[in-house]
Amino acid sequence: MKPQADTQTAPDFAPRSWTTRRDEKARRLAAVSGWLEDGVLPTARTTDALELLIRSGDRVALEGDNQKQADFLSRSLAKADPSKINNVHLLISSISRPEHLTLFERGIAHRVDFAFAGPQSLRVAQLLEDGQLEVGAIHTYVELYARMFVDLIPQVALLCAEKADRHGNLYTGPNTEDTPTIAEAAAFSHGIVIVQVNEIVDELPRVDIPGSWVDVVVQADRPFAVEPLFTRDPRHIGDLQVLTAMMVIKGIYAPYGIASLNHGIGFDTAAIELLLPTYGESLGLKGKICRNWTLNPHPTLIPAIESGWVESVHCFGSEVGMEAYIAARPDIFFTGSDGSLRSNRVLCQLAGQYGVDLFIGSTLQIDADANSSTVTRGRLAGFGGAPNMGHDPRGRRHASEAWLKLLKNTGPVSRGHKLVVQLAETWKKGGEPTFVDELDAIAVGQKSGMPVAPVMIYGDDVSHVVTEEGIAHLHRAEGIDERRAALAAVAGVTPIGLRAQQQKTDELRRRGIVQFPEDLGILRGAARRSLLAARSIDDLVTWSGGLYTPPARFRSW
Amino acid sequence: MKPQADTQTAPDFAPRSWTTRRDEKARRLAAVSGWLEDGVLPTARTTDALELLIRSGDRVALEGDNQKQADFLSRSLAKADPSKINNVHLLISSISRPEHLTLFERGIAHRVDFAFAGPQSLRVAQLLEDGQLEVGAIHTYVELYARMFVDLIPQVALLCAEKADRHGNLYTGPNTEDTPTIAEAAAFSHGIVIVQVNEIVDELPRVDIPGSWVDVVVQADRPFAVEPLFTRDPRHIGDLQVLTAMMVIKGIYAPYGIASLNHGIGFDTAAIELLLPTYGESLGLKGKICRNWTLNPHPTLIPAIESGWVESVHCFGSEVGMEAYIAARPDIFFTGSDGSLRSNRVLCQLAGQYGVDLFIGSTLQIDADANSSTVTRGRLAGFGGAPNMGHDPRGRRHASEAWLKLLKNTGPVSRGHKLVVQLAETWKKGGEPTFVDELDAIAVGQKSGMPVAPVMIYGDDVSHVVTEEGIAHLHRAEGIDERRAALAAVAGVTPIGLRAQQQKTDELRRRGIVQFPEDLGILRGAARRSLLAARSIDDLVTWSGGLYTPPARFRSW
Repeated sequence: MKPQADTQTAPDFAPRSWTTRRDEKARRLAAVSGWLEDGVLPTARTTDALELLIRSGDRVALEGDNQKQADFLSRSLAKADPSKINNVHLLISSISRPEHLTLFERGIAHRVDFAFAGPQSLRVAQLLEDGQLEVGAIHTYVELYARMFVDLIPQVALLCAEKADRHGNLYTGPNTEDTPTIAEAAAFSHGIVIVQVNEIVDELPRVDIPGSWVDVVVQADRPFAVEPLFTRDPRHIGDLQVLTAMMVIKGIYAPYGIASLNHGIGFDTAAIELLLPTYGESLGLKGKICRNWTLNPHPTLIPAIESGWVESVHCFGSEVGMEAYIAARPDIFFTGSDGSLRSNRVLCQLAGQYGVDLFIGSTLQIDADANSSTVTRGRLAGFGGAPNMGHDPRGRRHASEAWLKLLKNTGPVSRGHKLVVQLAETWKKGGEPTFVDELDAIAVGQKSGMPVAPVMIYGDDVSHVVTEEGIAHLHRAEGIDERRAALAAVAGVTPIGLRAQQQKTDELRRRGIVQFPEDLGILRGAARRSLLAARSIDDLVTWSGGLYTPPARFRSW
Repeated sequence: MKPQADTQTAPDFAPRSWTTRRDEKARRLAAVSGWLEDGVLPTARTTDALELLIRSGDRVALEGDNQKQADFLSRSLAKADPSKINNVHLLISSISRPEHLTLFERGIAHRVDFAFAGPQSLRVAQLLEDGQLEVGAIHTYVELYARMFVDLIPQVALLCAEKADRHGNLYTGPNTEDTPTIAEAAAFSHGIVIVQVNEIVDELPRVDIPGSWVDVVVQADRPFAVEPLFTRDPRHIGDLQVLTAMMVIKGIYAPYGIASLNHGIGFDTAAIELLLPTYGESLGLKGKICRNWTLNPHPTLIPAIESGWVESVHCFGSEVGMEAYIAARPDIFFTGSDGSLRSNRVLCQLAGQYGVDLFIGSTLQIDADANSSTVTRGRLAGFGGAPNMGHDPRGRRHASEAWLKLLKNTGPVSRGHKLVVQLAETWKKGGEPTFVDELDAIAVGQKSGMPVAPVMIYGDDVSHVVTEEGIAHLHRAEGIDERRAALAAVAGVTPIGLRAQQQKTDELRRRGIVQFPEDLGILRGAARRSLLAARSIDDLVTWSGGLYTPPARFRSW
């Protein structure tokens, strides 16, 4: 009975338990307590234990990060008996392993909220069509974590670390990534935190996550899976990418004074990284631009670091093979007292959203309004992290030189704008135009029943588009028609580019809204691969003084 | 000598140290090592030690959070000899204690990057004018933390916790707030982490921050300062605020289906919280709206929690007096195995930015375009956390029922919008209009030499403005003139409101763009304080079953 608003009498409550989550957790842990010794579960008992620790319908946060994967736990869960656990609601950053989808085929899981499904996107689309998988929503990484504290609070978290000690303290090593955030969401909402580790030791190199947040530790059958997603072999950078990179450095980074930035993972941005010590140096830009980075430890950044361009790099995750190099460069990277990297996806995303002057990334398709997407037909790939950094953060209140250069004078209430730059070759390798009338994302969204099309970066957030033809300074255009004309002027012989009118383009070039290489004093013929500070993985190893040890697949020697 | 781009020879580097930060940290810690026992510094040595651990020109992150304050460390630093430490660059969320400014008067600090300066804003403005203080920038909270990983990496962090053990592990208790984030920025960039604690114990109730992140622990002379900033005494809620709150519930929360939300700290939103169990119940809305909250533990939320409205609350910080109540409601609040709250400002801000349907807050001034500010003349108050939640996050990619209701059909590339609601009485208590032609913030910004005016919430992010006159559904208006007309229609007899034209207002009401109480079926005369579920602090204590123990200043018995 609720209290009467008009009286001051004490409310008289119906009996209700306020500890249902805590009690449920205690019940489940009690069911497996016989198997645990100091919180450690025998490896062979993992599937049995998961069948007791997870209940049908639970929200289960499975650590499939951008890079590292709690793959022993996902493989063990995929072996569970669907009559014991079914209809799990999976929360997972990156659907990237085959067994993630086995969970749906076997009925163990049914609903999923996720951020990225690159390698498994075709299978996701197929399962969706077959009704075996239901998508809650597709998020950018930090949105998914955000909801773990709001309406997607997990009952169970399946996590991944390098080492644990006998108190359950965890050492993540350089790939800290998302583990602390997911652990926090579960541990403090009376969720059950289960962690696979490569090794159980007496003394940890450092503590990344306190033991009091962890319920069950299990030693995995083999070290957790981790992919070198951010390694770009300089051999695959062509002259056109060098040309584009030169334009970005001379036409954007220098005049806008880009001190802090995030780079995407394409070959175009790798080319920029590799031109800083050569072309950038020749322009006298060292110390003036590209000082503070929010970026994974890209091997192609090594020459710029060694040449003294870089003051700091904060990382979302790590990169396979970069461990010893990072440990030897603690002035640059965020490292612990043990010497290895401390990455943190949420904090790096926050830094990349609010703390930097510029986001730049490559894209696969752009429409006339500069909306862009990496979705291609048939694939439900998702978003990953780009949307969080590739937009103008309207909650930003501090100014920087670069941000103020995009200020539009709209009277006394004006504000600057983040630089959001999209890079694209006008035609893709497969012979398809990059600039199109309608993004494939629209058809994919409709087919999948998504409420809005899965656009990666919205055109009205984009300040610049750069192609091998030139730079469109979209933020300088007046009105939507001029904006479209500026984009068309750099879109080459694509359906969009063919709409460009010579006279308007000439005017836009005179007004500095469009710049072709010659307007920047860049000779197309001078844009050669030979300008790259490293032209192979081997060169990068040399630059690193032998500290960078690339994975076998990147070695040619 | 840098490698020649045209040759494959190994680069030949000039000798350079890559461990300058780590070496400098080791040197400074060695200077105080004689005083430390198990990393614990004797209380009486604090100022001496700070003089050795901090160098002139350092960036020092001082924990002045929204609520808790490392006040022993700030008082100790203020006693330092300015000939030994000067020109410190202070990074501080909230300039809220007198000694924060003594640091500038004495020349110990000179530059400051901050987020909020409420109680000390007049003195900040004065010191700025006198040239004793230089402002880097004024941020919203998370922006400032973001920059601690980019271009404002601290050399020293001065932090605050309840307890430490002999290994330097920290227990923050319910006010975790910003400590883990600032500790991470410093600890992993070879900054020195110094923590004041109330108590040093053998065994912690739980570990909030691992000891391997902490360099020096010192027991404070008295428990750290913490302010009950979020307690609103229901006695001060008037009939007009009840009317506004009824309109918000019936005219916004119900039709838009607001399941998850953040409330500001004003009396208007406290009124909404207190009407849920009475008026909200009578509308049959329980379980349909206001289920998941990102919010400090407002005492005025107790009746809604007790009545079963609330599924979850994730908190930025805690609130004095709410400890026992929170500990008894672990199904609702994020709590640790010790039973007490785990708050986290960065994660709650992330949740409040990306994870909820609605932000609603009170403001002091609004202009014709719905730009608003809490800045008043002469005061450089700053932003706090509102801008991060009070904007449409353009990096959001998941949909919700409420978000889709604000979708404007702009063709195949459309998206929804967060609800951003501003509450205001048309006239302030002091007899000044709330709706004005020009925000005071513009003059304050100019006088302080700020590059852009310190606007709190930008008008183009605002979806609704609600006054005692009615609701303006700004997102439904077509074009800027109609938007202004909708705002004027609810602005009463202020300079803005007087521009409203009866005929246009009638049309806007017919089209549902403006709603007056009568359009919602709300009788002005029925909006009475007696509808509030609690009308005093004593009522809240009763609702809580005696678990809420308000600070003395809020007690009237």
